Amino acid sequence: MTWSATVLTIQPEMFPGPLGLSLCGKALAQGLWSLETLDIRAHSTNRHGSVDDTPAGGGPGMVMRADIVAAAIDSVDRRHRPLILLSPRGQRLTQSRARHLAQGSGAILVCGRFEGIDQRVIEARALEEISIGDYVLSGGELAAMTLIDAVVRLQPGVVGADASLDEESFEHGLLEYPHYTRPQVWEGHEIPAILTSGHHQKVRDWRHAQSLELTKSRRPDLWDAYQRRAAGAATKH
Amino acid sequence: MTWSATVLTIQPEMFPGPLGLSLCGKALAQGLWSLETLDIRAHSTNRHGSVDDTPAGGGPGMVMRADIVAAAIDSVDRRHRPLILLSPRGQRLTQSRARHLAQGSGAILVCGRFEGIDQRVIEARALEEISIGDYVLSGGELAAMTLIDAVVRLQPGVVGADASLDEESFEHGLLEYPHYTRPQVWEGHEIPAILTSGHHQKVRDWRHAQSLELTKSRRPDLWDAYQRRAAGAATKH
Repeated sequence: MTWSATVLTIQPEMFPGPLGLSLCGKALAQGLWSLETLDIRAHSTNRHGSVDDTPAGGGPGMVMRADIVAAAIDSVDRRHRPLILLSPRGQRLTQSRARHLAQGSGAILVCGRFEGIDQRVIEARALEEISIGDYVLSGGELAAMTLIDAVVRLQPGVVGADASLDEESFEHGLLEYPHYTRPQVWEGHEIPAILTSGHHQKVRDWRHAQSLELTKSRRPDLWDAYQRRAAGAATKH
Repeated sequence: MTWSATVLTIQPEMFPGPLGLSLCGKALAQGLWSLETLDIRAHSTNRHGSVDDTPAGGGPGMVMRADIVAAAIDSVDRRHRPLILLSPRGQRLTQSRARHLAQGSGAILVCGRFEGIDQRVIEARALEEISIGDYVLSGGELAAMTLIDAVVRLQPGVVGADASLDEESFEHGLLEYPHYTRPQVWEGHEIPAILTSGHHQKVRDWRHAQSLELTKSRRPDLWDAYQRRAAGAATKH
């Protein structure tokens, strides 16, 4: 069973888009995951194909109608997949959430446009709201692509060497150490000597120290959480 | 002067992609912003067009070479635009950072692929690292698109009614209140009576109370920051 994404959108022509190229695109062509895009407009109840109406209580913009979005959702074969609404009001996507989603059978992703979608359908269909970050986009489509990319690259066989997933940012609650490659000297800057020393343990220690330092200086929030976990682990022994 | 994005990537065929459709696409066609995509591979120094090499110190994956990425960067007409690397190790993109970027003349966005790019070019060209969230993507391209979308929709004339930008999530440090539209009754659920009461002040108060409640329950971090700002503002009076 390959990981399967179903995207509900009024912009189906955006897909696969970037997901049809490069790493995700190759994996899609190889059948390592699957993508289905459904047009919410197909469930419009009028001949103009409209899916929205003015907000109750007034204000600018338009709101996607509960009945039309619900009809689109209800047309999907659920297959035990989580039903997700991409929304800046949601819980933030993290690497750990992406890994959890990757272990499941797929996801059904609802993309809002305009001001948002009618709150009643969010509640009645128990949509899980997920946000990719604390900013506002013109629609949920780029957020859905971002979530799919984060999850697809964790599928077995997608990234060449599975080992390269273990040392990356967030896998141990830390930012990743810096990378270097040839040329040995560039514009007068050398690759740090330890990396070309051939001492594997010293390389590992240096990289770990760099990860700690980078996390501490750039992301005090991750650093605090890392220290709390480390303290908890120490207490248990 | 319209806001102008220059994207450096080894996947230029991904652009404009989703940015060429819907809200951003219409604004692009209207000349409300501009997009230039440059292929980093054009600066490869060998006939295979390769841009990467194995990591110094060993490990899986490949690292983008400093000399090639620097040559691509140096080929761009800078025009006082910030030089940004999309990276999970960067400072997180926020709505306030997006607004700040929107007020400038544009951005030069470097997209990494593989394990990342050589640290020396990040330092020597003073790349500002920005992350769209705490997860890892297969490349910087979707992150660049996400940043561009967040910024472009803030450009004058892109979103129909400018007023609809004022009440959305994060603009006052709060999540946005829920939306409702017709039909008045759907699957037995009514639109909250206050919204159809015609009392504009009561509607505003209800929406504000909903924003506060939602932020408090879903995002204690934003809620704490909001309360600290409110306390600071009160002290000043």
